[in-house]
Amino acid sequence: MAKQDKQFVNDIADINTDFAQWYTDVILKTDMVDYGPVKGTMVIKPYGYAIWENIQEYLNKEFKKVGVQNAYFPMLIPESFLKKEAEHVEGFAPEVAVVTYAGGEDLSEKLIIRPTSETIICAMYSKWIKSYRDLPMVMNQWCNVIRWEKTTRPFLRTSEFLWQEGHTVQASMPDADKDTKQMLKIYSDCLRNLMAIPTLTGRKTENEKFAGAEATYSMEAVMKDGKCLQAGTSHNLGQNFAKASDIKFLNRDGVLEYGYSTSWGVSTRLIGALVMVHGDERGLRLPPNIAPIQAVIIPIASKVDGVLDKCAEVKEKLVSNEIRVKLDDSNNTPGWKFNEYEMKGVPLRLEIGPRDIENGVATAVRRDTHEKLQLHLDNIVQEVNNLLKEIQANMLKQAEENLKSSIVEVDNFDDLVNSVNDHKVALAYHCGNPECESEIKQKTTITPRVIHSYDSEHKCVYCGATSKYRLYFGKQY
Amino acid sequence: MAKQDKQFVNDIADINTDFAQWYTDVILKTDMVDYGPVKGTMVIKPYGYAIWENIQEYLNKEFKKVGVQNAYFPMLIPESFLKKEAEHVEGFAPEVAVVTYAGGEDLSEKLIIRPTSETIICAMYSKWIKSYRDLPMVMNQWCNVIRWEKTTRPFLRTSEFLWQEGHTVQASMPDADKDTKQMLKIYSDCLRNLMAIPTLTGRKTENEKFAGAEATYSMEAVMKDGKCLQAGTSHNLGQNFAKASDIKFLNRDGVLEYGYSTSWGVSTRLIGALVMVHGDERGLRLPPNIAPIQAVIIPIASKVDGVLDKCAEVKEKLVSNEIRVKLDDSNNTPGWKFNEYEMKGVPLRLEIGPRDIENGVATAVRRDTHEKLQLHLDNIVQEVNNLLKEIQANMLKQAEENLKSSIVEVDNFDDLVNSVNDHKVALAYHCGNPECESEIKQKTTITPRVIHSYDSEHKCVYCGATSKYRLYFGKQY
Repeated sequence: MAKQDKQFVNDIADINTDFAQWYTDVILKTDMVDYGPVKGTMVIKPYGYAIWENIQEYLNKEFKKVGVQNAYFPMLIPESFLKKEAEHVEGFAPEVAVVTYAGGEDLSEKLIIRPTSETIICAMYSKWIKSYRDLPMVMNQWCNVIRWEKTTRPFLRTSEFLWQEGHTVQASMPDADKDTKQMLKIYSDCLRNLMAIPTLTGRKTENEKFAGAEATYSMEAVMKDGKCLQAGTSHNLGQNFAKASDIKFLNRDGVLEYGYSTSWGVSTRLIGALVMVHGDERGLRLPPNIAPIQAVIIPIASKVDGVLDKCAEVKEKLVSNEIRVKLDDSNNTPGWKFNEYEMKGVPLRLEIGPRDIENGVATAVRRDTHEKLQLHLDNIVQEVNNLLKEIQANMLKQAEENLKSSIVEVDNFDDLVNSVNDHKVALAYHCGNPECESEIKQKTTITPRVIHSYDSEHKCVYCGATSKYRLYFGKQY
Repeated sequence: MAKQDKQFVNDIADINTDFAQWYTDVILKTDMVDYGPVKGTMVIKPYGYAIWENIQEYLNKEFKKVGVQNAYFPMLIPESFLKKEAEHVEGFAPEVAVVTYAGGEDLSEKLIIRPTSETIICAMYSKWIKSYRDLPMVMNQWCNVIRWEKTTRPFLRTSEFLWQEGHTVQASMPDADKDTKQMLKIYSDCLRNLMAIPTLTGRKTENEKFAGAEATYSMEAVMKDGKCLQAGTSHNLGQNFAKASDIKFLNRDGVLEYGYSTSWGVSTRLIGALVMVHGDERGLRLPPNIAPIQAVIIPIASKVDGVLDKCAEVKEKLVSNEIRVKLDDSNNTPGWKFNEYEMKGVPLRLEIGPRDIENGVATAVRRDTHEKLQLHLDNIVQEVNNLLKEIQANMLKQAEENLKSSIVEVDNFDDLVNSVNDHKVALAYHCGNPECESEIKQKTTITPRVIHSYDSEHKCVYCGATSKYRLYFGKQY
């Protein structure tokens, strides 16, 4: 790293020695987010929100292909609704925010701000679903939810966050199972294709599943510090919520039956994953497909005649070909701008000065490799497009290598603990006993992330009993 | 109307004799909306939500053109924030919902669910804005808000609704004024171009302005029953909120000065306006540009070989040309389907049966004129596109004629009252005295909608004093 650059990056903590502070520095200094006035809340600033909008756009397209319809359900849930499903209320009760007063008077029934909407959506479904002809019912909403958290960090864990939550009702358990897995696939494809994030996907153990679900599937992304982040979940709720909410349908045989429901969601947590999977000592690194700014144009010697005009011309060309471009023609020095957009993770920098124009080129610098290239101005759209594709592919490759190298197969508990403490994810056999799992968690704060595969040929890494499955173990965000 | 049709429409109230019931019937039976479990709340179902998404898409494009950036601010506002601006707290206090308990304990400070976000956004702006270089600051958020209402109707007035709220800070009053008017123009263009709704736009009187604003501008749409609906507002807040929130910037002369802020919003009310401006005795009529389904294909004699295939082929052609098409190949009768999609307001119906296929045509029926036409299957994309454009233009023309014919110029108070009671909007001179205005309102429930023009050459229609302006008077939703 050149001396000059070092001076610019001084104000971000060292990613290798203080990852937590590095994260906070990066998200605040790149204007992705700020702290809200109420403890535990965040303001998502335009540079962060644009990332969320790109996720929304991608998922809305994929949702549409499989028949998901967007809708909007009320945020306030009567307290009695939440109590209908026993495990559900137990799971969420400690985290809810409660409205007790509205319109100038105390409310006769307390209203819960949704921590998730199963109970209210199922209540509506119960009204709308009468027959197998009404199934499947497949709706999604983009909304805010509130879960009152003691310890919070922007994007990763906040009292209010944004998410989408999809809710389906099917006529059979296999169909509900299909929905659950289909959505997990859509999510992991989104992370891979849009965000260049590979994930570990699989079923959660009984201890770790969603409150009220039959089965929870999750995708876990592994951050640069080796910790896992639950990046999206898909729940097969079986008939639990249908029974609690009385969702009954007349099946093809004319028999009244409870429906089989699922729910699935991803949230603004994903923005945190993006930062922690790709970032480096200089700040953010954004994969082109999700970057709010894919290329930044920086005029060199901008006062020389023709430089700004050429920059504007190149910008127009790129923009009209749907490349997201910013031209920074502010009075700051080129050096300041180089640092600024590196920190902001813009995948491609285009420098255009008098000499470049003379040679009919722009000087391009890749954020992922720091490689410097000359692009031909008369073919700039295609060359930029090609480069953006290359950067996207390379960032996925780097992330895949990181993921691969962070997984360690272990066959004894000491190795498991040591690996995880050494910033790895451990792959180990487990007996499947929830008490054994809880003991590990209590002793070490290590938890099973997802089930890798079922297996009864080995011994549990902790208690030595016959194995039930092979699990990824790690620390979690 | 044919006899057979009449039987189908029986279940919607008569638009001419019971407009209120007609509205409720239409929005419920077309699956736009349902009542939520908490009094005053609504569930926006997919057919209604798709309309909202089309509004979002249109406005996001227009916002981007003028430099608006989307962001997200926390929903919960400390009670003390709301109290900072005296008129603002007075205006909103009776309508707020209050969180008093969260995360298992009573909160030390009550939190208000945003009825609008001026106070919290200005608090953040105060932190972010230091110098004229930080201005203008122009952000928008799409979110839910809560205003606890005693009397509610889906879309028109609900305890929770969805909207966008934009908030800008400028370095001078003229710039804030420019923002305010620019947004009003974007809104009224949206209604005209997307929704085929012409509006009356102008400034509100002092009595009718937003709590805490210097000036409020509004666009008012006139419903088929002659009542006005405030469809969007844009507020010049002057320095009121900047002073309350301490938004100060160092101006170009190096002097610390308070900023000049604006705010502007449209909400899911617009969906109600769409219904009540265009609907008829058969139900909804949706302008093609905003219709979730622009054309519905209905197979005739669908069991005859080749009919369904041809329908699917036509659908694919239209869909791949970005026309929003539904093929209804369900087991319901064609007659049932005709009625269903008429009620749902689908602009164009395409019937395709064996005889049509033989003749190389589809039989098209326009929702706006009930006109029947033959379209050539080998040129179907262009012919459908042309027809959709014609329908859009014709619906705007019809709405403009309705608006024009609903305005009556009056020069005495009896005529004003009689006109408004006769489902008209009255245009009359007024003295501008807030007490005179309040008296009119108290006596008649008639309110000034917007200022038509300034004028001091006439007498007030009510008190006879010298006029200040000419006002549109009407009843409001």
